[in-house]
Amino acid sequence: MTPTLTETLVQRHFSVSGADLCVGGLPVRELAAHHGTPLFIYDGGVMRANYRALKQALQGFAHIHYSVKANPAPAIIRLFASEGAGVEIASIGEYRAARAAGVAPDRILFAGPGKRVAELEAVIADGIDEVHVESYEEIARVAAIGARVGLRVRMSIRVNPVAAAQGGAMRMGGKPAPFGFDEEDLSNVVAAVMAQDALDLRGVHLFAGTQILDVDVLLSQWRHAIDVASRVAALAGKPLHTIDLGGGLGIPYFQGEGTLDLAGITKAVPDLQRLLRADPLLADARPIVEPGRFLAGPGGVYVMAVNASKLSRGTRFLVTDGGMHHHLAASGNLGQIIKRDYPIVAPARMDARDTSPATVVGPLCTPLDTLARKTDLPDLAADDLIAVLQSGAYGRTASPSGFLSQPEAGEILVESGVVEVMSAA
Amino acid sequence: MTPTLTETLVQRHFSVSGADLCVGGLPVRELAAHHGTPLFIYDGGVMRANYRALKQALQGFAHIHYSVKANPAPAIIRLFASEGAGVEIASIGEYRAARAAGVAPDRILFAGPGKRVAELEAVIADGIDEVHVESYEEIARVAAIGARVGLRVRMSIRVNPVAAAQGGAMRMGGKPAPFGFDEEDLSNVVAAVMAQDALDLRGVHLFAGTQILDVDVLLSQWRHAIDVASRVAALAGKPLHTIDLGGGLGIPYFQGEGTLDLAGITKAVPDLQRLLRADPLLADARPIVEPGRFLAGPGGVYVMAVNASKLSRGTRFLVTDGGMHHHLAASGNLGQIIKRDYPIVAPARMDARDTSPATVVGPLCTPLDTLARKTDLPDLAADDLIAVLQSGAYGRTASPSGFLSQPEAGEILVESGVVEVMSAA
Repeated sequence: MTPTLTETLVQRHFSVSGADLCVGGLPVRELAAHHGTPLFIYDGGVMRANYRALKQALQGFAHIHYSVKANPAPAIIRLFASEGAGVEIASIGEYRAARAAGVAPDRILFAGPGKRVAELEAVIADGIDEVHVESYEEIARVAAIGARVGLRVRMSIRVNPVAAAQGGAMRMGGKPAPFGFDEEDLSNVVAAVMAQDALDLRGVHLFAGTQILDVDVLLSQWRHAIDVASRVAALAGKPLHTIDLGGGLGIPYFQGEGTLDLAGITKAVPDLQRLLRADPLLADARPIVEPGRFLAGPGGVYVMAVNASKLSRGTRFLVTDGGMHHHLAASGNLGQIIKRDYPIVAPARMDARDTSPATVVGPLCTPLDTLARKTDLPDLAADDLIAVLQSGAYGRTASPSGFLSQPEAGEILVESGVVEVMSAA
Repeated sequence: MTPTLTETLVQRHFSVSGADLCVGGLPVRELAAHHGTPLFIYDGGVMRANYRALKQALQGFAHIHYSVKANPAPAIIRLFASEGAGVEIASIGEYRAARAAGVAPDRILFAGPGKRVAELEAVIADGIDEVHVESYEEIARVAAIGARVGLRVRMSIRVNPVAAAQGGAMRMGGKPAPFGFDEEDLSNVVAAVMAQDALDLRGVHLFAGTQILDVDVLLSQWRHAIDVASRVAALAGKPLHTIDLGGGLGIPYFQGEGTLDLAGITKAVPDLQRLLRADPLLADARPIVEPGRFLAGPGGVYVMAVNASKLSRGTRFLVTDGGMHHHLAASGNLGQIIKRDYPIVAPARMDARDTSPATVVGPLCTPLDTLARKTDLPDLAADDLIAVLQSGAYGRTASPSGFLSQPEAGEILVESGVVEVMSAA
């Protein structure tokens, strides 16, 4: 029989010892007993392995910046930084998290459609590597700050391309978007930037799609980015330093979804190198890929304890102590059109043979607080554990943690059997 | 011309002075200038008026408990408590907020499908009015706590009725739900409760629908609750004290939606009284209505400042400093099937005659962070203000405030020109 996505993920990233799912080498059961529930457990080894695999695939072509929005916990940022990643931030809050993780300002890029003046002032004064400007207002603001503090601000132009990936499919003819400047408007944008003495145009940043699982879509987007960079360099009449290819590297959440084919990237690198070398103005350019979900997602497991098991009109409900207030995406309320279940297991009952459909809900007084709909789980009772996989990105901080004034989830980082408590449950 | 919902709401709840929308008697422009943006402004007068109108309509029939989940800020709870409302909580966090607002434990009811033992212990030891039990596990837990501390715990049975309102329509034949006990199972539930010496069965609590705008749906639900209470009293062989009719009272968010017909409630009160008097075991019962959204929603306004105005492929985008991280519901990501815009205005440009379609987005790097789609707004530039109406309930605490590590929104309560700063922006 073909393994399910859940089985595949457990086998790929974790291990099973008797009845126990082990994350970072330790049984989830023991971790939950020691650290309480609800609990996000992050496997540092899985995150490192994801980073290294992607780095290997990009060898000779692009650098990796970790996109902090996926999981802004300093321990997670520190892990990727220790592997050599730069970071991409989208707010002063993320900047502070990166600095708290020990990342130097010159390893940090700042993108985002609505940066405040105070945020720009702070990061520019600190010596941030680059600001990626997204509006004419921002060109003027960044230039004014540069003039005020007496330095040329390193910046790139964020571009909303004519060809964009949306939901994993390549779409020709870009959509209207608030991110960056329309590609069609590039000559005006470059002129506006070049007119400012206080701006040091370093490169371009392409607005990408999200959750892309098809490597060909990703590669065609990257090729397009190089083409855009070429045109910007020509318009500016100067070599570029940065080609931010965006993020968007996906991970499988639902049955039938596969993993991104990293071998396909490796195979495409010579062609991408050739494209870069073809333009003398891009010869020294540094392409950057900025994944978040791809690096952090698969290492995270969200663990809940059952509060009650009840039957209502033929449906088995498992009421847990965790829910949408910690994991909005898994409840299907973070942009999903169709609500589908994240991969879910009973981490202390991995040897159970008999399963039956159960609907997993949280403690909130709303039907939205549902984490799985009639999914197969063993017979579980109060205090038994349930774990949602693929929960390392867009989990805790992408969720309404104040909803119904429930307690925050704890967070721990586990690597080779060593536990770092990030925040207590 | 028929006024739009936005016009109707502005006229009903607020005032306009020249170009300025005034909330609580003060121009939003001045409040935003003094208190910063993004900012939730709550009009205490509107909230009081809503409470008083509902109280008046329920006169002689039911008491009101404010459902804290709608807006758990102590200043808001205090306002309703000062009007005479009890409160309904769904977590120890909400209990603490109610206590911080000065509400005595004997004015508090605790419902929720996944109450933790530690929560139950704390509120029972404190002398909470009632615990509304929702599972067999909870019956045993509450009884054990009562036995341990040597008191009979006042409790009601939460019932998942055979007839339920969903999305404003009455549905016969209840759905499976994790809330309370199926009505079909009541005889077993009552027997389980009555078998416990440490439990003092006081009444029933009906699981209601949400956002009900049709008064007939609401009334038929209330009649059904009285019928259920009658049967529970008969099964228990004792008079009941509490009939919690649930909340679910809706407010209009979208064009075409009307307000709940309070006159229809007033008109029905004699019949509801008659139903109660018809059963001697319910003669002294106290019906309770527990609205949250209805009381707090219309008084709240969420104010953002424009960061950039940009045109992308024919669409005008207004990028603001606020967004889905403060107001998930207004972004259409809190359970909505179809994304529609909340009523939205330019609160310092109320006199503008020329408007054109604009898409209002926040500062997050995701297309989900959209608060209005091609809505009519005047020509706005950086630092101009935009305000979302109907934002007093399920706003700040129902939103992923940590997403992209953006700053929290401030909150102020304004009444008759006096400002109380609840939390700074």
